[in-house]
Amino acid sequence: MANCLVAQSGGPTSVINATVAGVVKANQMNPYYEHVYGGLNGIEGILQERFVDLTNMSDEENNILRQTPSSALGSCRYKLKRENVQDFEKLFEIMKKYDIETLFYTGGNDSMDTVAALSQYAKEHGITDRRFVGCPKTVDNDLQHTDHCPGFASAAKFIATTALHTWLDVNVYTRQEVFVLETMGRDAGWLASSACLSGIVDLVVLPEEAFDKDVFLAEVKKCIEEKNKCYVVVSEGCKYADGTYIAAAAAKDDLFGHAVLGGAGNAIKQIILDSGVASRVKVQDLSTAQRAYATSQSKVDVEESFQLGMSAHMRSTDGKFTGKMVGLVRKDQPQYDVDFIAIDADKVANYVKSFPKEWILPNYRGITQEALDYLRPLIVGSPVIIYKDGLPAVVKPYYMR
Amino acid sequence: MANCLVAQSGGPTSVINATVAGVVKANQMNPYYEHVYGGLNGIEGILQERFVDLTNMSDEENNILRQTPSSALGSCRYKLKRENVQDFEKLFEIMKKYDIETLFYTGGNDSMDTVAALSQYAKEHGITDRRFVGCPKTVDNDLQHTDHCPGFASAAKFIATTALHTWLDVNVYTRQEVFVLETMGRDAGWLASSACLSGIVDLVVLPEEAFDKDVFLAEVKKCIEEKNKCYVVVSEGCKYADGTYIAAAAAKDDLFGHAVLGGAGNAIKQIILDSGVASRVKVQDLSTAQRAYATSQSKVDVEESFQLGMSAHMRSTDGKFTGKMVGLVRKDQPQYDVDFIAIDADKVANYVKSFPKEWILPNYRGITQEALDYLRPLIVGSPVIIYKDGLPAVVKPYYMR
Repeated sequence: MANCLVAQSGGPTSVINATVAGVVKANQMNPYYEHVYGGLNGIEGILQERFVDLTNMSDEENNILRQTPSSALGSCRYKLKRENVQDFEKLFEIMKKYDIETLFYTGGNDSMDTVAALSQYAKEHGITDRRFVGCPKTVDNDLQHTDHCPGFASAAKFIATTALHTWLDVNVYTRQEVFVLETMGRDAGWLASSACLSGIVDLVVLPEEAFDKDVFLAEVKKCIEEKNKCYVVVSEGCKYADGTYIAAAAAKDDLFGHAVLGGAGNAIKQIILDSGVASRVKVQDLSTAQRAYATSQSKVDVEESFQLGMSAHMRSTDGKFTGKMVGLVRKDQPQYDVDFIAIDADKVANYVKSFPKEWILPNYRGITQEALDYLRPLIVGSPVIIYKDGLPAVVKPYYMR
Repeated sequence: MANCLVAQSGGPTSVINATVAGVVKANQMNPYYEHVYGGLNGIEGILQERFVDLTNMSDEENNILRQTPSSALGSCRYKLKRENVQDFEKLFEIMKKYDIETLFYTGGNDSMDTVAALSQYAKEHGITDRRFVGCPKTVDNDLQHTDHCPGFASAAKFIATTALHTWLDVNVYTRQEVFVLETMGRDAGWLASSACLSGIVDLVVLPEEAFDKDVFLAEVKKCIEEKNKCYVVVSEGCKYADGTYIAAAAAKDDLFGHAVLGGAGNAIKQIILDSGVASRVKVQDLSTAQRAYATSQSKVDVEESFQLGMSAHMRSTDGKFTGKMVGLVRKDQPQYDVDFIAIDADKVANYVKSFPKEWILPNYRGITQEALDYLRPLIVGSPVIIYKDGLPAVVKPYYMR
C-alpha cells in the first residue's frame, strides 16, 4: 500500500485546515493509503522531508482542527519554477522514498500552477505512479472555474459582521463622522463587496473600477448632507485609472511631503480630509484578523472545505486522478447546495476571477441584488465552536511539535 | 405611578444594551414604574426631550437587544458641568414634566460624575422625588470600587481570541516576523493585558510602566534569536518616562521628518525597524472592532450586564436609592460568581483604576498568574447568538426609529 501527502500553501484562511481534516477522515473511512502524511511548510518543507503522520488522527483532534485557523501544517511562498529541474527531480525522489502516490496541495492559483507543473512533469517523464491533486483555498475568492473558494465565505462573514457592528458604533454620537473599513483584496473586490451583506454600507470602492476621486467625494458629500455620516468600505487593491494604487498615490500626493503609512483606508481618509467634505474620519483596517478570526466561521464554508478534502481523497482512489483541482459548482435549484467537480489545474493556475463589473452599482453605491443573492447563502450557519477556558480550542501547529 | 428613564453615555461596548434590557425586564417583572423611557443620546438628548417608550418591549426584542453592540439609545460626550446651572434646572423641569422619578445612567467615570452631581443638586435643593442611579460600563475596566466593568470582558475575549488566531497566522511561514497587536486603553492596561489569556504573547507594553526603548528592543532581539518570531501587544496609551505617548514621539522622532499616522502599534513598528532588530513587522490595530464585535460576547459579561440593570431597577424601588452606582464584587469562594453592590457615585467619578503594577512581569514579559486568575473567569462561556440571514441579529437603533 502506498501513502499520500497533504500540504498547504499561500496565505491561510480560517477553514484551510478543514480540507486537511477531510482528507484524513476520508482515509479513515476508506484506508486506500497506508499513511496520510502532512508536509510541513508546503513544497518548501516537503523538499526538506519535513513530514508528520496524520493517519490516525483522533476524532477530537479532527474536530478541533476544523475550527483552527491558519495552516496547521505551515505554509510557504515558495513557487516551483519549471526551469528549476533539480526541484522537480528531488521532489519525485522524495515521493519515491516515502512511497507517496498522491500529493494533495491546498492553495491559490500559484499552488494550482504547482499541481499542473508536477503532473505535467510526471506525464512527460512517463511517471504514472505519482499524482497531484489541488484543493482550492483563498479568502480572495479569485480562482476561476469554481463557484467560490473555501475560506472566502468565513472572511466575508467576519467582514459583514464587523461592518454591521462598527456601523452601530459610528452612529451612536450625533456628530458628523465618516468611517472607512479596509479589507483585503489586492486584485479582486470579493471581500470588500461582501461587507454589503450587512445592508449598512454607503459606499464601496473596488479594484475592478478605476477610482475617480471627484465622483467619490461627491457621493461622500451627499451622504454627509443627508445623514451626517458615511460608511465607506475600500479594498486594499483600489487603483486610479492610470493603475496607481490609491495607497501609493496618497504617499506621493500628501501636501506636506509626509509619507502616509498604511493602505487604502488611510489614503481614503486623507483624500476626504484634504477635500474638506468631512473633518472626522476613522479607519479600521481589518488586516490579518479577517482571514484568521475563526470564531466567525461560516458553517457552509467549513463543511464545504471538509467535504472538498474528502472528495479529493475519494476521487484519488481511482489511481488515475491527477493534475486536477476539486472545485465547487452551485446546484441548479432554489435551495443552496453544491456539487464537487474536477477542473484541470492548468486552467486555474495564474488566472484571476474578478468581481463581475455588471454586479457593481454606479457611483460606489454598492452591489446588485444578484451579487447579494450569490453571496448570501455562503455565510449562512455557524458551527458549534469548542471552547477551552473561555477561548476557542485550537490544535497546536504540527510544525511546532 | 411615576416613570423612569434609562440612558447611555460615553464609548459603547458590546454588552452595554444588556443593562438597558435588564432595567426593562425588571420593570416587567415588577411594574414599579408606569413607563420605562429610553433617553436618546444621553444627557444631550434628554435635554432635548428625545425619548422612546421601552416599557412593553417584547422578549424577542429584549433578547436581541442583549446581543446588539453599541448604545442602541445613542450616546454623547456631553458633560454636565456644575457651573451650568441652566442645564440642571432644565433637566429637573423635564423630569417633572414627564414625571420621571429615577434616571438610570450607563457610562464610565464621567457618567458617574453626572449621577453624583445630579443627586447632589437634588439634595441641595430639597428635591426628594428625583433620583439618579449609575450603571457602569467601559471596555477599559478602569472604574474604582467595582471588581470589573461590564463591557470589559467581551472586549478582553475578542482581543485574546484575535491574539491566538493571528499568532497562528504569523507563524505559518518560516520567515522572520514581528507582529504587533494594538489595543485600546489610553490610561490603563487592562485590555492589552487580557491578550495574555491566549498564552501566546511574547511581549506586552502597558501604560502603567514607562516605556524603555532599549529594554524593549533587547527583548524583541531575544525572541527573534530564539524562534525567529515575536508577538507584541501594545496599549494605545503607552508613554515614555517623560509622559510623552510613544505614538506622539514617533511622529516627532522619525528621521525623515515624516508624520507617522496611526497609534502606538505603528510607533512600535517604526522603533523596531529603525533599530534593525527585525526587518519585517506587521501591525494590527483592533480599533473600533474590539468594543463592537458582539459575536464574541462573554456569557459572564452579558449576563452580569443584564443582571446589573435588573439590580439597579430593584434597588430603586425603595424610593430612596440615589447618587449610587451599582457595582460588582467577586464572591469569596472557589467558583467564580459576583454579588451586586451599591457604591457612592462620587467615589467612582473622575478616578481611574490602573492595572496593578505588581501584576506586571519585568521586561514586558507579560502578566502574573494572579492577574490571569483574575481575568480568566470573566471571559468564560459564549451566549447563543441569534442569526438572521447569516449575520447576528441586531435591533434597529432607537435613535433611528
